[in-house]
Amino acid sequence: MNNYYALVMAGGSGTRFWPLSRKRLPKQFLSIDGRSESLIKMTHNRLKKTFDTKNIFFVANPEYSSLISREITDIPAANIILEPVPKNTAPAIGLSAAIISGKDEEAVIAVLPSDHYIKDEALFSNVLKAAYQAAREGDIITIGITPDRPETGFGYIRKGALISNIDGIDIHGVEAFIEKPNRQKAIEYLSTGRYLWNAGIFVFTAKKILEEMGRLMPQTLDAILRVRDIIGKEPGKAKEIFSSIESISIDYGIMEKVSGIRVIPADLKWSDVGSWGAVRDILQKDNYGNVNIGGNILIDCQDCVVRSENRTVAVIGMNSVAVIATDDAILVTPLEKCQDVKKVVDELDRTGKKGLV
Amino acid sequence: MNNYYALVMAGGSGTRFWPLSRKRLPKQFLSIDGRSESLIKMTHNRLKKTFDTKNIFFVANPEYSSLISREITDIPAANIILEPVPKNTAPAIGLSAAIISGKDEEAVIAVLPSDHYIKDEALFSNVLKAAYQAAREGDIITIGITPDRPETGFGYIRKGALISNIDGIDIHGVEAFIEKPNRQKAIEYLSTGRYLWNAGIFVFTAKKILEEMGRLMPQTLDAILRVRDIIGKEPGKAKEIFSSIESISIDYGIMEKVSGIRVIPADLKWSDVGSWGAVRDILQKDNYGNVNIGGNILIDCQDCVVRSENRTVAVIGMNSVAVIATDDAILVTPLEKCQDVKKVVDELDRTGKKGLV
Repeated sequence: MNNYYALVMAGGSGTRFWPLSRKRLPKQFLSIDGRSESLIKMTHNRLKKTFDTKNIFFVANPEYSSLISREITDIPAANIILEPVPKNTAPAIGLSAAIISGKDEEAVIAVLPSDHYIKDEALFSNVLKAAYQAAREGDIITIGITPDRPETGFGYIRKGALISNIDGIDIHGVEAFIEKPNRQKAIEYLSTGRYLWNAGIFVFTAKKILEEMGRLMPQTLDAILRVRDIIGKEPGKAKEIFSSIESISIDYGIMEKVSGIRVIPADLKWSDVGSWGAVRDILQKDNYGNVNIGGNILIDCQDCVVRSENRTVAVIGMNSVAVIATDDAILVTPLEKCQDVKKVVDELDRTGKKGLV
Repeated sequence: MNNYYALVMAGGSGTRFWPLSRKRLPKQFLSIDGRSESLIKMTHNRLKKTFDTKNIFFVANPEYSSLISREITDIPAANIILEPVPKNTAPAIGLSAAIISGKDEEAVIAVLPSDHYIKDEALFSNVLKAAYQAAREGDIITIGITPDRPETGFGYIRKGALISNIDGIDIHGVEAFIEKPNRQKAIEYLSTGRYLWNAGIFVFTAKKILEEMGRLMPQTLDAILRVRDIIGKEPGKAKEIFSSIESISIDYGIMEKVSGIRVIPADLKWSDVGSWGAVRDILQKDNYGNVNIGGNILIDCQDCVVRSENRTVAVIGMNSVAVIATDDAILVTPLEKCQDVKKVVDELDRTGKKGLV
């Protein structure tokens, strides 16, 4: 698999893990348990089991370039592709595919998020290998996560008939990509067994994705190819051209409009690490279901996430609450409301405490 | 009222306000809202409206001597009486009465806590003046707070018949001192209108209290008089004698056993400032009933107490919770469980984090 490339999407921003994450330090660069490596470093280590290190690429906003180099020390500088301007995933993937295909016409590319958690790494590697085999034939392959709860926070993929089996891995047709459902629909999806979570993992040849891009968004492909030829040489020009591109996701721009996409259903023990509640799900818990990072004192607490740095937090009699203390800020919230941390960040912005954002 | 003395009980220890209060910095030395003076300083200021500054005495554990001097800058050193050994309130009051009576045989003494809050200071002053008049005749007067809720955390006084009225202030007999009741009894007490909270405020002549002490605890009085004569000169000896004294409260040792005690019922808008819940009751609240000390961000919160120093706390979607952040520790607890902070302090002791206690 000398021509198998990983393209890690490292451009995500956001403050869902405030006060731990900040605008300048988004989630992929954090160690969620305070001890292990950052999520992006864990992703890189996981991919090294399947890909040659020299075949692992990152694409990101230039702002995060030095954070990536700091985390991933064994990567050639040329493997960090910097978007001239952030334009969502379709242009980032198109540009990266054009660059990789310039080095290797036969490239097969697996596109993967940088900030997810996968427990079953052996299965993940097998699935990626099967996807490689299938993608070489010209198909676009996505990996669909077997759901274990009626989650309303993810998009879904409705799988079709079984098409083939490669080394024990089933490959199905895709009937539809589906937007985030409401609770009732999510329960229905879970009960039928036909729906999978869309984890944003796609495998295709560079040739195939550029072909589809040329068909579905010819102006974007044209701009991408022009940027590919001058990137790193004429930054002002590259930025100007990229600025003109439509900002659009790969799901909406390509995947939902292409026929013949295949899905590999996989129970990867996957998490999008999307909230403090998700952190609770994946980390080690005490006998009462609490995640305690930093040696805090929990008395009569259940199902809490308590994390501190350089100071002691004591929590008494709380259920399903997150208490997150950094050197300059502290968050206290029920886990089910932790998405409202966005309101805190807005308030900090509004009140001029931008240093905390 | 040249012979009217205030004796402020400043020896209280405790960690009910951990992480704000510590063993070396108990509640009376704290500013509860982070801006105003400490409770002991507020107490001193309140008393200066009724007593000559030179007539205000403090009695405390030697450990707190420098804290008192730091807070109360306009007090003669001789007005800080240091217990050779802590022996609860009866010996502390007995020793103080013996010392004050040595300076002024006609002394009338008002004994008062150092760590309570009184909003209606004008009424308080009038009540103290009436108590002085009544105590001069040889009665022991206590002030009973008009209850406004079925509180189970205080002792009660059952008032008897109206005995006199001095300058508009009613003075009643006392039928009984009553231990902290259960909830049902507390509701009953509130409904009858005959019960008052025992706030630990007593007014008597030095002569009267020493007489009663001689009658009810002659050995204690004997030891106290011997210590009075050598205190400040022979500290080792004073400590040795005081160590032999029975440790007992003024309520249990004297007040419950003396007949002819009088009570002045008074609606002083008083608080014992005994918990973070009590702090919420007395401090200024936002439109949702939250006390916010330190410019914290509260989103969808009700009836919370949030206090920080040098960092920002953000609280989302919590009701009736205390979040208290100091430089080295953070407490999160429902207000109704904040007495369990004792368990935190025990745990810190046990795990060797004594620096935080």
